Amino acid sequence: MNFKSMRYMLGRIMFAEAAIMAIPLFVAMGYGEFYDIPAFLIPIAALVAAGFLISIKAPKDGALFARDGLAIVALSWIIMSLFGALPLFISRATPTYIDALFETASGFSTTGASVIEGSRLADVATGKAAEIGCGVLFWRSFTHWIGGMGVLVFVMAILPVSGSRGMHILRAEVPGPEVGKLVTKMSKTAKILYGIYLAITVVETIFLVCGGMTLYDALIHSFGTAGTGGFSNQGASIGAYNSVYIDVVVSVFMLLFGVNFNLYYFILLRQMKKAFCNLELRVYLITVGVATGVITANILHIYKSFGTSLRYAFFHVSSLVTTTGFGTGGSLVSFNEWPVLSQTIVVLLMFFGAMAGSTGGGFKLARIIILVKAGIAELKRLLHPRSVRPVTIDKKPVDEATIHGTFVYFALYATVFTVSCLLLSIDNGTAEFPNDPTTTFTSVLSCLNNIGPGLGSISPPNGYFGFYSQPAKLLLTVDMLMGRLEIFPILMIFAPGMWIRRRRSALRTKLDEEALPPSADAEE
Amino acid sequence: MNFKSMRYMLGRIMFAEAAIMAIPLFVAMGYGEFYDIPAFLIPIAALVAAGFLISIKAPKDGALFARDGLAIVALSWIIMSLFGALPLFISRATPTYIDALFETASGFSTTGASVIEGSRLADVATGKAAEIGCGVLFWRSFTHWIGGMGVLVFVMAILPVSGSRGMHILRAEVPGPEVGKLVTKMSKTAKILYGIYLAITVVETIFLVCGGMTLYDALIHSFGTAGTGGFSNQGASIGAYNSVYIDVVVSVFMLLFGVNFNLYYFILLRQMKKAFCNLELRVYLITVGVATGVITANILHIYKSFGTSLRYAFFHVSSLVTTTGFGTGGSLVSFNEWPVLSQTIVVLLMFFGAMAGSTGGGFKLARIIILVKAGIAELKRLLHPRSVRPVTIDKKPVDEATIHGTFVYFALYATVFTVSCLLLSIDNGTAEFPNDPTTTFTSVLSCLNNIGPGLGSISPPNGYFGFYSQPAKLLLTVDMLMGRLEIFPILMIFAPGMWIRRRRSALRTKLDEEALPPSADAEE
Repeated sequence: MNFKSMRYMLGRIMFAEAAIMAIPLFVAMGYGEFYDIPAFLIPIAALVAAGFLISIKAPKDGALFARDGLAIVALSWIIMSLFGALPLFISRATPTYIDALFETASGFSTTGASVIEGSRLADVATGKAAEIGCGVLFWRSFTHWIGGMGVLVFVMAILPVSGSRGMHILRAEVPGPEVGKLVTKMSKTAKILYGIYLAITVVETIFLVCGGMTLYDALIHSFGTAGTGGFSNQGASIGAYNSVYIDVVVSVFMLLFGVNFNLYYFILLRQMKKAFCNLELRVYLITVGVATGVITANILHIYKSFGTSLRYAFFHVSSLVTTTGFGTGGSLVSFNEWPVLSQTIVVLLMFFGAMAGSTGGGFKLARIIILVKAGIAELKRLLHPRSVRPVTIDKKPVDEATIHGTFVYFALYATVFTVSCLLLSIDNGTAEFPNDPTTTFTSVLSCLNNIGPGLGSISPPNGYFGFYSQPAKLLLTVDMLMGRLEIFPILMIFAPGMWIRRRRSALRTKLDEEALPPSADAEE
Repeated sequence: MNFKSMRYMLGRIMFAEAAIMAIPLFVAMGYGEFYDIPAFLIPIAALVAAGFLISIKAPKDGALFARDGLAIVALSWIIMSLFGALPLFISRATPTYIDALFETASGFSTTGASVIEGSRLADVATGKAAEIGCGVLFWRSFTHWIGGMGVLVFVMAILPVSGSRGMHILRAEVPGPEVGKLVTKMSKTAKILYGIYLAITVVETIFLVCGGMTLYDALIHSFGTAGTGGFSNQGASIGAYNSVYIDVVVSVFMLLFGVNFNLYYFILLRQMKKAFCNLELRVYLITVGVATGVITANILHIYKSFGTSLRYAFFHVSSLVTTTGFGTGGSLVSFNEWPVLSQTIVVLLMFFGAMAGSTGGGFKLARIIILVKAGIAELKRLLHPRSVRPVTIDKKPVDEATIHGTFVYFALYATVFTVSCLLLSIDNGTAEFPNDPTTTFTSVLSCLNNIGPGLGSISPPNGYFGFYSQPAKLLLTVDMLMGRLEIFPILMIFAPGMWIRRRRSALRTKLDEEALPPSADAEE
């Protein structure tokens, strides 16, 4: 453990968050919400002071090892959430600090689950303004944008970080098992990723403004789409605009942000074959197409018209498979009242998630492809025990370590899921929002996969979680962060032995340094 | 593929089923139900004729290979179910042949899910007789007893079967990954297993008769307990007797049949250390204890008395973790109306299942132990990449192939589960029995894990599945057989290439012969 180096990195993160928080401060001032200035100034001051204290001395030995990378990522996200919750708490957007923490972790992790009732948000149809300041709501949505690509990637795009150091962090933070270096220099990879991310966000904002949104609303919803988060400033989410154009634009951009960002880089390099000959992309598009088709047919009798059914089916499929969680349909029935076939598809899409290397959460299609292919290979091996047929994806063989790592991740995911369901079901909910098995199951699914809404009491448009008790909210906060960082980093910091300085085994630690975490290493 | 040998074995199975079917025929005659005689005589005649036709010539080369073993087991269970359904269909116990097939597959697979309404069964409290003959109901429950230990094991206990041949079959049929030879001679192992099985069944029958049951009722419920099936001749299941003594006796015997049978053999040999120093046994007992304790506390406010809460908690925990599925509680609320924490525990117990090598279904605790231990080992490896710490159970190292096999089984199980949920949710149920996500999920869980009842529309006491459409019933029939045979054998017979004679690759087939299926082989 390189504690000095770790402290230094965490200090940088705090400075970065303070800088990021200045943006909503200016928004609040721009809207004349001067009463909300302390809500931003206090945390900014706290972040700068704390950051200065722990990173006063730059470490001589800047090397970071796999373990350090995991710990830095986990601690950064926890610190970001703890400080990031202050504006919401101080401005009284949420009743308690735990609620604010839930909301902020939901923001950074791009979940979009909310403890703020839809009735306290804006309604563009009636012209009603939100009961929460524009600056604070901007911060709430901006956390999605920051969390989508990763705050450490952001820091690396700005700060010069040495190769091995950056790689460990990049691997631990970027969603999915597949992100490797795009270019040899780590900070350049981070810059490219953020450049693409920014460009698509800007394009969506322009499209939304053209559809009649104010620039503020367009930015809020672009942040929610880009990070595949799902926070809206409207009580009825995207449904508030009741516009086919906006529904389609948001649906398409949600899908675009569910694509592995490496593919965009290949398109930029005009390596079209590398970009489009991709099994995961095909599975992604086929999943969306088939799910949209089946749900359209299944809900036709509810919405009467084919066009309306297709519109809502496509929107919700995009929203759920990318783990964004935006809602639409206004006062019409949401997927909570759809037929059981559509509901089952909805739950499966929630589980699947989008492509690895995108901003989407969930289990990731890449992992499902590996599991299915490895399962089939096993069946074939039963038929012909002596024949050796390696599992291949896009004609490249997948090595045993990757397969093993994916299976372990699946088992770990299932374990965390099970324990979370068990703990969450201690909460009985309220009379208005009862907690039944469906609500428990989809609450955990929704938080662990960073989606937002679910079935039962957490149904759309907003995925309201405010009825849960404080311990339940803390549990779901941990689940959201675990889901975003893919379990390992958060589990690691609780592991016994993680924080022990091993002076006596300096040699062994030296050996450890070379090795990368199996999960990330294997899937390069 | 040794087709001749396979035909011969299937013929023996048919003869065995004809012989087994003579028992309920005598029961029917004993109760004076002469109108039901054709219901048994017709299938007996058909089985004998068909068995004679396909096994007229004994094969010269009696050797069986891994693949043949899997295929024989899968086909035997399908044939047994197809013929075994005839008595129920001919006697009009079920309205259609598909219903009869569902009921019989439910019987042999020891699921206990039923398409027969509770109102058509007996009620000991009012003295009402069942609308279905005693002989037919005896057959329905007797399938549990046969299916529990496995029909091929039964055949092997009677017929002389050569070593390698028997081993492949035993491995494919006995539940759980852990059954190996107890003694060198295969048929002797089968005899020992059946001997223990028979003895405990007899002891339970005596206990139940002492509790006031008629011998007939005692046998019916002992069969249901022994096979961990759950069929009852009472509309209210065990609850009909409203007896603390009977509830406790059945609870304890359900737990006893959920224990790995090897442990009983070790007790017979007075190898107490080998029998009791067993991690899976500890996990099994702790699971039952903790679940009973938590549920008792959680349902105390419903049943008012501690004794009653403990009684129902213990009964349902035993019933579900062993995948038996008996109900109790009479007109009192069943677990379908328990608080959400108890319901979540119920679902988890349904998933877990009992010990490997018992008659219980489910995922098996042994597998869960392997998954959890391998997951922890992986986390440790992340902390200390160079240290090699093998996964151990009971101080014995678990080899990599076993771990890999368990992960693959888990992924395969999840895949079958997912596809089944998706297909089952096409069925909307009926107005009285709607199919909602909870019902779909627990129906598949209940059938795939061979339990019987579930939450929602398939709630206890009986786990009534009659409201499902015919295609849904066929799907669940396949799931029940897949669950009982642990997926591989049933999947294998649908695999392309399984039925191709490979004359040209005789050498390769020769090589294949030596290899056992990885799943069974690895976990010996």
